[in-house]
Formats: sequence, structure tokens, C-alpha cells
Amino acid sequence: MGVVVSIDEDRKRGSPLEALTVLVADDLLAVNALIVRRMESPVPLIPAISSHIVAAGGKRLRPVLTLAAARMCGYRGARHVALATCVEFIHTATLLHDDVVDESDLRRGLASANTLWGNQASVLVGDFLFSRAFQLMVEDGSLAILDILSRTSSVIAEGEVMQLATTNDVETSETTYLEVIRAKTAQLFAAACRIGAVVAERPAVEESALEAYGLNLGIAFQLIDDVLDYSAKQATLGKTVGEDFADGNITLPVILAFRRGAGSERDFWRRTLQNRDQRDGDLDDAIRLMEKHDALADSVARARHYGAIARDTMGIFAEGPERQALVELIDFCIERAY
Amino acid sequence: MGVVVSIDEDRKRGSPLEALTVLVADDLLAVNALIVRRMESPVPLIPAISSHIVAAGGKRLRPVLTLAAARMCGYRGARHVALATCVEFIHTATLLHDDVVDESDLRRGLASANTLWGNQASVLVGDFLFSRAFQLMVEDGSLAILDILSRTSSVIAEGEVMQLATTNDVETSETTYLEVIRAKTAQLFAAACRIGAVVAERPAVEESALEAYGLNLGIAFQLIDDVLDYSAKQATLGKTVGEDFADGNITLPVILAFRRGAGSERDFWRRTLQNRDQRDGDLDDAIRLMEKHDALADSVARARHYGAIARDTMGIFAEGPERQALVELIDFCIERAY
Repeated sequence: MGVVVSIDEDRKRGSPLEALTVLVADDLLAVNALIVRRMESPVPLIPAISSHIVAAGGKRLRPVLTLAAARMCGYRGARHVALATCVEFIHTATLLHDDVVDESDLRRGLASANTLWGNQASVLVGDFLFSRAFQLMVEDGSLAILDILSRTSSVIAEGEVMQLATTNDVETSETTYLEVIRAKTAQLFAAACRIGAVVAERPAVEESALEAYGLNLGIAFQLIDDVLDYSAKQATLGKTVGEDFADGNITLPVILAFRRGAGSERDFWRRTLQNRDQRDGDLDDAIRLMEKHDALADSVARARHYGAIARDTMGIFAEGPERQALVELIDFCIERAY
Repeated sequence: MGVVVSIDEDRKRGSPLEALTVLVADDLLAVNALIVRRMESPVPLIPAISSHIVAAGGKRLRPVLTLAAARMCGYRGARHVALATCVEFIHTATLLHDDVVDESDLRRGLASANTLWGNQASVLVGDFLFSRAFQLMVEDGSLAILDILSRTSSVIAEGEVMQLATTNDVETSETTYLEVIRAKTAQLFAAACRIGAVVAERPAVEESALEAYGLNLGIAFQLIDDVLDYSAKQATLGKTVGEDFADGNITLPVILAFRRGAGSERDFWRRTLQNRDQRDGDLDDAIRLMEKHDALADSVARARHYGAIARDTMGIFAEGPERQALVELIDFCIERAY
């Protein structure tokens, strides 16, 4: 195992994400400019909140996927810039809406990004960005893309609601967990990639190959995100860990540790995640139980499975720098767990 | 002055809204069926929450406007049913998102419709309905209508954020208040009506007449809603009053009473709405101050002004049952204040 690196840190050292970002550098500058321009509103609170989330930088992983997929497909126009911006706006809207907290969370005294402006502002600015994304799509004028992204948005919302229903339920199955992350995370990766083939007017087989690449990459990405939330190494680097644990989110490391654990261990998971009765040291105990049952390593192994599918689906495209960078991105997203 | 009647109660007695509803009865049945069908989701919480809000009935005022406008424009197809459903889904999504409360509200112990399922569920199911509305529009296939409703959705979000910024600010001007209600309420009325002309492929002058009718009707409608929240008569009928007061929402009755009031009265408004320091009897005192300064009656007078504009804008359409019912609806929406 190497050291844990975040995508941001690694970018400086010539990671596959950096390679990808360099390949689409001009397009990405155009995306960033469009993001700033289309967040404008006569209502000052809107750019204030939006820019806090969207313009502050971030990985821009999803729009980069759209840009790189379009270029790989030989697209030479400029429509992909606005469409990549749509994807980022939809992503940002879901982040803002994810920040909304319930009375129960507030009672537990958890802070969240919405603390700065409150729940209502997070919701409304998310709505604004979401509407703005659809305006950009309408300006682009492709009903095919409107179809892809409106269906994607519905599926994301369904995934988030499904996740809500599994919160605190330690008996959630791996199958249900997979349905949740497929809907809430992977579907937007899939759409972001597929759109690249759509603007380039490539045949259906390439559209669906890019969609499958994005879907499997997205599943692997979320699996690793969920592993990192329990990563002892991540903790030593000063990164936040334990958010899922504190929130009672049931992710694959919990599911595996619960199912592989003895009765007393299951009581621990029920107390901490189901009854939300958490004490000092519980997070350390949770990580210890996960390591005892290889729950973290096996979650990474599951991610590798989806990564392998993503890699193979790219086989139909001709070799080239974009394809190479997209393929290398897969391992990079997975190995950041170590 | 007569007695206060809600739209629902009056419907039974042959009101203009009933007349309108009868004219589009078959279409409205189709809308109701489509609403139920398109709320379906493999995630059970979604139809559960949606149906609580959308399928429970309600006035269906906005979709009825779309249906009646289309018929008045001579449209004989069926597209207006799905488009009226879009309008209702967008309206319901904004209702769900309006229900989201902040920590401050929770501390004050206010209950809200979201109490049943929590903030997060309200937000996510709102997102689902909003996305579903766009899916319906994409299925309809008109970029012109997608353009109208995506811009409307942005404007609604802007209006809601603007309203958030005026909350508790007793020095909010009538102009700012009007901007807020134009954006958060009237724009959807305008879009609902305009779409009727768009599906019927009527000339631009009719599109814009219906848009202006909806916009002015919507402003009048919201003005009256804001008056009713302080209506002593409404209170005697067992309807809820004082919600805006409790929430610190600055509506026209407050704006007029504050600006017309003496220094000690302004201290009252600052204490109750700005500092949110409210005691027993404050709501009664607020209503008394409003009546002293004719703030409620003059808010109704303002509504009549917009109603008059809405009425005149309908002059370009040929006489007929839909036009008559739409025109009579204006006074009905306004006079429900008495």
C-alpha cells in the first residue's frame, strides 16, 4: 500500500486526472468562465452561494469527463462546453440539496456546509442552478440531451430518496446499496460521458460504451469514497473521516462488517448506526471491526470489479491520448484508497 | 363586504373557478390520471410524499389555466394535458421546497408539512417532481415550451431567494415586494397561460396577451393570499391566519402599515418581525394596526389594479365560454378577501 492522496494533491504530480485535465485545458477554461457567467443573477445571494460551491474550484471531474469524451469522439465544435457546464450545475445542485439537514441532525449538533446560509438558501440556490442547467440545455437545443439529463436528474433524486430509506438500517443489503450509488452517483457520470458521444454524433454503440464506462467508473468512485470515510490513513493526513458513521449512512464497509460479524458486533452496529447512540472511541472500534473482517479491502476489491468493466468497455474506441487518460483515470480513482 | 369563502368551499356553489373547471372537466381528469401515473417510482417514499401533496386534490388552479387557455385558443389536440401536468409538478416541487425549514424555525417550534417526513425527503421528492416535469416536456418535444418553463423555474428560484433576503426586514419596499411575488408566484401563472397559446400555435400577440393575463392574475392572487393571512374574517371561519407574521415574512399589509405608522408602531413591527420577539396578542395588535391604516383594504385595492390589467389584456380574444370564465376568475380571486 502507498500513501493516501486526494485527487487535488495528486493533480500537482502528474496524475491521470491531471493528464485528462491538460488534454481539455482550453475547454475547461471555457467551462469555468461559463459557470461564473451563468451563475449571475440580480439576486446577490445566488452568485454568493453558488460561487462558494461551484466556482471555488473542485475537481470538475464530471465536466472533464464530458469534455474528454467529446474530444475522444472526434468532436471539434463548442457545444460540449455548455453541456459540461450543465453537468456541473446539476452536480452542484445535488451537493447543495444534500447539505440540507433535518431537525434530528441539528439536535445532534452537526454542522454542515449549509450552516453559513441555512437550509432554505441551500435548497433555493440548488433549484436555481438546476433550472439554469435546463436553460443551458434548451439553448443547446438537443432533445436527445435534454432527455438524457432530465431522466438522469429523476434517477438521482430517486437514488437519494432510496438512500434516505436505508439510513440507519444496518440490515441494508449490498444489492440495495449498489442500487443507491448507481442512481445517486454513477448515473450522472454515465450521462456526462455519454453526452460526449451524442454531441459528436457517434453511433449508438459508442454512446452506450461511454455510458457504461461512466456508470462503472461512477460506481467504483463512490465505493472508494465510502471506503475513504473509514480510512485510518486518510485520518492521519488530516482529512475528515467518520461522516457517514456520524450520519448513520449504511455504506458497503458497514454492510460487509455487519454481515460477517458475530452477534456482539452486530449489537455494536445496531447501537451506533441504528439507534444513533454513539460514544467516544466508537469510530475507532468501527474501523477495527471493518479491518478484522476485511470489509474495507473487499470494498476496494468490489470497486476494482467495476473498474475492470469500465476499462473493457473502452476497447471499442481507437487508441489516442483521451482514451488512454480515461482508462488510466479508472485505476487512479480506485487506488486513491491506498 | 360578504363573507370570506375559500376557493374550495365556493367551488360547490357555482363559482367562476367551478365554471372553468367544468369547461375543461375531461382534460382535468386526464391531468389527474397523468399526475398519479407519472409520480410512480420504484422508491415507495416518492409516491407516498408526492401524493400527499399533489394527488390529495387541491385547486389545480395552474393546470386549469393551461387547459382553459389552450381550449380558448381553439386547440383540439391532447398535448396540453401533459403540459398542464408539468405546471402542476413544478408548482408542487416549489411547495415541497418551501416547506423546508431552518434551525431557527425549528427552535421556535413551528411545525410544517415537512414534519411528517423531514426536510431531506421534502427536498428530494421536490427534485424528483421537478425532474419529472422536465421529462414530460422532453416527451412533448417543444423546445419553445422547454424554454418557457426552464426560464420560469429559474425566475421562481430567484424570487424565493429574494424573498429570503427580505424576511424580517420591515423596511422592505413595495417595489421589492412586487418583484418577489412577480417572480415566485406570478411567473408560473404567466407560463401556465402562455403555454395554452403555444400548443395552439397562435400568433405572438396572443401568446403575450395570455402571458400578461397570467402574470397580472398571479400578482393579484398572491396579494390577496397575503391579505388573507391577516384576515380576521378568515380567522373566524377556522382558517389558519398569522403564518406570515409568525415567520417574519414581509408582505404588503406589513409594508403599508409600517410606512404609514408612527414611531411606536414601527417599534412594534421591528420587535415582532425584525427581532422575532412575539408575544400573545401581537397578531391581534398587528391586524388592528393594519386596519387602522387601511393596509388590508389598500392591498386589496392594489390587487384590483392588477386584476383590471388582466381583464383588459383578454380583450383581443373572441368571446366564448373560456374567455368569460377566465375573466370572471379574476374578480373571484380578488373578492375572496371579503
